[in-house]
Amino acid sequence: MCGIFAYLNYLTPRSRQEVLELLINGLKRLEYRGYDSTGLAIDNPESNNDDGSKIMIVRRPGKVKVLEEAVTEICKGDEYKTKLTTHIGIAHTRWATHGSPSEINSHPHRSDLDNSFVVVHNGIITNYKDVKRLLEKKGYVFESDTDTEAIAKLIHHLWQQHPTYTFRELVEQAILQLEGAFAIACKSKYFPGECVASRRGTPLLVGIKSKTRLSTDHIPILYPSAKKQRAYNKKLPADIPVLQPAPFNDDTPAEDELLEVKEVEYFFASDASAIIEHTDRVIYLEDDDVAAVKDGVLSIHRLKKSLDDSHAREITTLKMEIQQIMKGNYDSFMLKEIFEQPESVVDTMRGRMFFESKTAVLGGIKEYIPEIKRCRRLILIACGTSYHSAVATRQLLEELTELPVVVELASDFMDRHTPIFRDDVCFFISQSGETADTLIALRYCKQRGALIVGVTNTVGSSICRESHCGVHINAGPEIGVASTKAYTSQFISLVMFALVMSEDRLSLQTRRLEIIEGLENLAAQIRKVLQLNSKVQELAKDLYLHKSLLIMGRGFNFATCLEGALKVKELTYMHSEGILAGELKHGPIALVDDEMPVLMIVMRDPVYTKCMNALQQVTARKSRPILLCEEGDEETKSFSSRYLEIPRTVDCLQGILTVIPLQLLSYHIAVLRGCDVDCPRNLAKSVTVE
Amino acid sequence: MCGIFAYLNYLTPRSRQEVLELLINGLKRLEYRGYDSTGLAIDNPESNNDDGSKIMIVRRPGKVKVLEEAVTEICKGDEYKTKLTTHIGIAHTRWATHGSPSEINSHPHRSDLDNSFVVVHNGIITNYKDVKRLLEKKGYVFESDTDTEAIAKLIHHLWQQHPTYTFRELVEQAILQLEGAFAIACKSKYFPGECVASRRGTPLLVGIKSKTRLSTDHIPILYPSAKKQRAYNKKLPADIPVLQPAPFNDDTPAEDELLEVKEVEYFFASDASAIIEHTDRVIYLEDDDVAAVKDGVLSIHRLKKSLDDSHAREITTLKMEIQQIMKGNYDSFMLKEIFEQPESVVDTMRGRMFFESKTAVLGGIKEYIPEIKRCRRLILIACGTSYHSAVATRQLLEELTELPVVVELASDFMDRHTPIFRDDVCFFISQSGETADTLIALRYCKQRGALIVGVTNTVGSSICRESHCGVHINAGPEIGVASTKAYTSQFISLVMFALVMSEDRLSLQTRRLEIIEGLENLAAQIRKVLQLNSKVQELAKDLYLHKSLLIMGRGFNFATCLEGALKVKELTYMHSEGILAGELKHGPIALVDDEMPVLMIVMRDPVYTKCMNALQQVTARKSRPILLCEEGDEETKSFSSRYLEIPRTVDCLQGILTVIPLQLLSYHIAVLRGCDVDCPRNLAKSVTVE
Repeated sequence: MCGIFAYLNYLTPRSRQEVLELLINGLKRLEYRGYDSTGLAIDNPESNNDDGSKIMIVRRPGKVKVLEEAVTEICKGDEYKTKLTTHIGIAHTRWATHGSPSEINSHPHRSDLDNSFVVVHNGIITNYKDVKRLLEKKGYVFESDTDTEAIAKLIHHLWQQHPTYTFRELVEQAILQLEGAFAIACKSKYFPGECVASRRGTPLLVGIKSKTRLSTDHIPILYPSAKKQRAYNKKLPADIPVLQPAPFNDDTPAEDELLEVKEVEYFFASDASAIIEHTDRVIYLEDDDVAAVKDGVLSIHRLKKSLDDSHAREITTLKMEIQQIMKGNYDSFMLKEIFEQPESVVDTMRGRMFFESKTAVLGGIKEYIPEIKRCRRLILIACGTSYHSAVATRQLLEELTELPVVVELASDFMDRHTPIFRDDVCFFISQSGETADTLIALRYCKQRGALIVGVTNTVGSSICRESHCGVHINAGPEIGVASTKAYTSQFISLVMFALVMSEDRLSLQTRRLEIIEGLENLAAQIRKVLQLNSKVQELAKDLYLHKSLLIMGRGFNFATCLEGALKVKELTYMHSEGILAGELKHGPIALVDDEMPVLMIVMRDPVYTKCMNALQQVTARKSRPILLCEEGDEETKSFSSRYLEIPRTVDCLQGILTVIPLQLLSYHIAVLRGCDVDCPRNLAKSVTVE
Repeated sequence: MCGIFAYLNYLTPRSRQEVLELLINGLKRLEYRGYDSTGLAIDNPESNNDDGSKIMIVRRPGKVKVLEEAVTEICKGDEYKTKLTTHIGIAHTRWATHGSPSEINSHPHRSDLDNSFVVVHNGIITNYKDVKRLLEKKGYVFESDTDTEAIAKLIHHLWQQHPTYTFRELVEQAILQLEGAFAIACKSKYFPGECVASRRGTPLLVGIKSKTRLSTDHIPILYPSAKKQRAYNKKLPADIPVLQPAPFNDDTPAEDELLEVKEVEYFFASDASAIIEHTDRVIYLEDDDVAAVKDGVLSIHRLKKSLDDSHAREITTLKMEIQQIMKGNYDSFMLKEIFEQPESVVDTMRGRMFFESKTAVLGGIKEYIPEIKRCRRLILIACGTSYHSAVATRQLLEELTELPVVVELASDFMDRHTPIFRDDVCFFISQSGETADTLIALRYCKQRGALIVGVTNTVGSSICRESHCGVHINAGPEIGVASTKAYTSQFISLVMFALVMSEDRLSLQTRRLEIIEGLENLAAQIRKVLQLNSKVQELAKDLYLHKSLLIMGRGFNFATCLEGALKVKELTYMHSEGILAGELKHGPIALVDDEMPVLMIVMRDPVYTKCMNALQQVTARKSRPILLCEEGDEETKSFSSRYLEIPRTVDCLQGILTVIPLQLLSYHIAVLRGCDVDCPRNLAKSVTVE
């Protein structure tokens, strides 16, 4: 997840300095979306101001503040104070997915050394390697490790092939070639004063600021003519249902349909938080919309008309505070991040899971798979929530890799001076990639010759850099101190690793297919689980005055117990403990009576009968447990008046669906107890000390 | 630990039926000391009653009840109702250490098919294999797997060599050859109406019942004459300091010194609980005392006079109730078992640790050591407290075996269908040897070809029988549901295994020596820790009204946290949790404030600095933790007004000393909360269901 921001003024004179300030300010609002490096592009003052034919790029690793200092240093001259009637600047704050945070990997990316086309991009282009290979054959030399650079160079290539195309047509043609998710904003020295932006899968909106009242509150959607459509002769992305024949209108808007403006400013941004201080009039773009501004006029284009398309995009009026927008309608980042999980799990799988071909590919680990398959054992090392993702997937890893799998708490692993061998493969899981305990364990294992695999959410982090290979979980920045979406993404990353490891095992194909199918349906099922929110809130009201909470389960759902209990501990300061249901009889059952709150996970998986035994033991001790059970499981539900019904998925993924109600529960208990959800006492987001 | 009981009547007519009832009754009182098999011996009614020259033995596997039924069946005839003026019966209830519980392994053991000499024995003869080998060369054929049988046959052998010796002299000579611990009572067809008993290292007392007042309240100790002493020409056990010249009195008591009785009954028993209902007049025998009754006269003999010997044994008067005696002055079996640990750890090491030669031998596993050394990994599988003993010793096993060591909760291990390979070595740890989860895991691993090692307290248990090899922890029966002495004995057994595995590793010798030294001093240090009892009780008063307790530590003491928390959970129903101090920052620290009770273990071991960091974090959050710290560690103590000072031992054994205060703490909190310590709610001693 990154933040993109673009600004265009038309007949509203602004100096370069003002534009730069606007861009920096926009980035600051978006910084929560990524903060490992930043950059921007405006017209170079040394070129002819009127055509802006030379583009200046400033990029810095680090936070927006670093960029701001660089920009302040640069724009001291008078040329930065000259007012320009029209100008376009694009800017970016990055959360690395391809290539570590560095100046060369920062956005904007450019088509060539002349900065002919520059692009800022949020998302992941999954086929960028193919595109890159093609362009390299044509002579393009890539300077960064990013997927984004391929977009800029592709547009340039198309421009060379089709010199008559408009800027918007070039971008349209380019995105036809792209797979994956993106929101982009483009600027070109050949098209001064023009900005083209588009999105697929990640958000993008356009803010409109005008001193005069807007002539319309809808922008019509324009389609290419039949002739052009044929000329393009390109395959549309598979996920757009095509309506034939489409009412082509040759891309030429009727005069009265267009937004008529004289003095106007446009803002393109990943979310409204970067726009709201300037204007409350915004258009939310839809997937595959291409928005173009030329001569101060905004038009919205689509290559194909699809079934559910409306004829126009509405200009809506924002009614939110900045703070509110940043948290996206949520009271806290944590709640926002819980609700982001239908998207973040898809981001994690993007470019890795190919549901049509039923295959999984982990680019960052692919070349090491033969070596990993020959290893003595897999050791998963982590702390806190990340450790729980290892516990959650251990069984599946054992099943699909047929290797011994050991999970270790990093601090205990180091305390024990655990013997490590050259033929061990060690995974280090950390959201931030900077967790000190985990990092120390990594160095210890590396020194002993083990293969090091990093699983982090932060490209360019220490764990990332010091690993031999790894998986970026691509969950996007996590602001809430209590980890939520990173957990589910770590979980899925490890599941995908198990799938990759078992690709050529014939006997495991049925199992793999059901897991792949499960992954495909996961986002929709998470949405369904999130609908339990108000029911969870009611349960929280029952619980929040208690001193303790026991969360019990076993098998694939034991990790959920540990993780749920940790969330409750972290957020609510209530003493909560995850208890392996199989261990109940060996001691913990003594705690159970009619007062001790108990939550049990009883899904219809291979340990269902054993869980039911535990449930009966617990109810026999007069406990009235809250149940997490399978949708429609009347038999299990009959054991308690309080239950949450969770959609069924394949056993090894069920933990993703069962953990979400516990994330919500901890949130609601914390709110009821008056705790600060995003900044729990005593805790820091990333633990960079031992 | 077993129970022995013998009865002798003189001029007090009793029928065989009455004697049998007395013996059965005695065994019932001693049943807590062992209950896997039982047996007794009296004179056979089919032989000549007057000389009792044929001895009848009745033995049964199972509890005393089974023996009682067998005896009831046998003694229906009139011959059992005939009154005898003098008679001697010996009886035994067994807790197996050598040989599984079966009729043939039950006591009394006999010298030959004629039952010439029969012996009941409590303890372990550590050199029985040497004795057995010697006797086998002489033509003796052994019928059982026990160490005890060697005693009976050795006495017989001595009798053949020295036909002029008295019964008492034969036993004296026999025990000179024995190493280890024992309390024995012997009966012979060649010495009708005589009983000889002795002890070394395990308890034995003699009760005296007489209708007339006893003529003395002291029994003088008799020593052999110088001539006889020379004739014996035997090496005395090393642990008796010899005072030279000894005042030899040729074993012949002066008439006036002896206990003068007419009608009398004698009772020999492992503890007073079996005697108190008959008489309150008892003599506690000391190590290497030999007590003999002949012609109704009791005499006490010692081969050598040692420095601290008194001249006589006092006949004391018991002032206790039966129940009280059974629990040995303790309010509960659990407290008794906690306080037994100085002895039980010695029992565990007996015959295995040779402190003079600095070596360790585990007879039950010796032959498998080469195979174990070649294994891929060691997997320790258990439940509850037994699992914690695996956690406690994992690091040392990793260090001394240089193998990967995995610890697994049996239920989770099975839930995960964990892959097991032919070259794995799997340990199964269970006090009862019948824990269902553990047993199921054992069968699963055995089926997959792994080597199975059992670590149990119960010879002949299922885990014992189904293992390829194993270690009996020899802690003696544990009655309290919450395991205490079994934990420390399991711990030591696994440490001894680590020592055996590393015997030939030159680089590990220094380490091994410090561990062996640590083991040697352990019993004395445990006694010192037990002196903290009243201080622990005071702490319990601070804690018992709280709802929660967090127990924190890391490294070698983390297992103590888990085990301590489990004890508190089991006994007090207070929500207690063991927390790895290294994980504090990753979540649990949020729980800490000025109200949450915290106990921290901060010993001067390799993780001391890290523990101090955690301590500082905790005190910074206004917590006033209770500290378990090293004796005299002023720096650490200064962090809290509440602390317990624990003697220092080698890091890997420290967990044995730190767990004991937590056992005591859970006990005292439970008492203050009014809980039943020996039978906590919802729990069973041995969990024989999944």
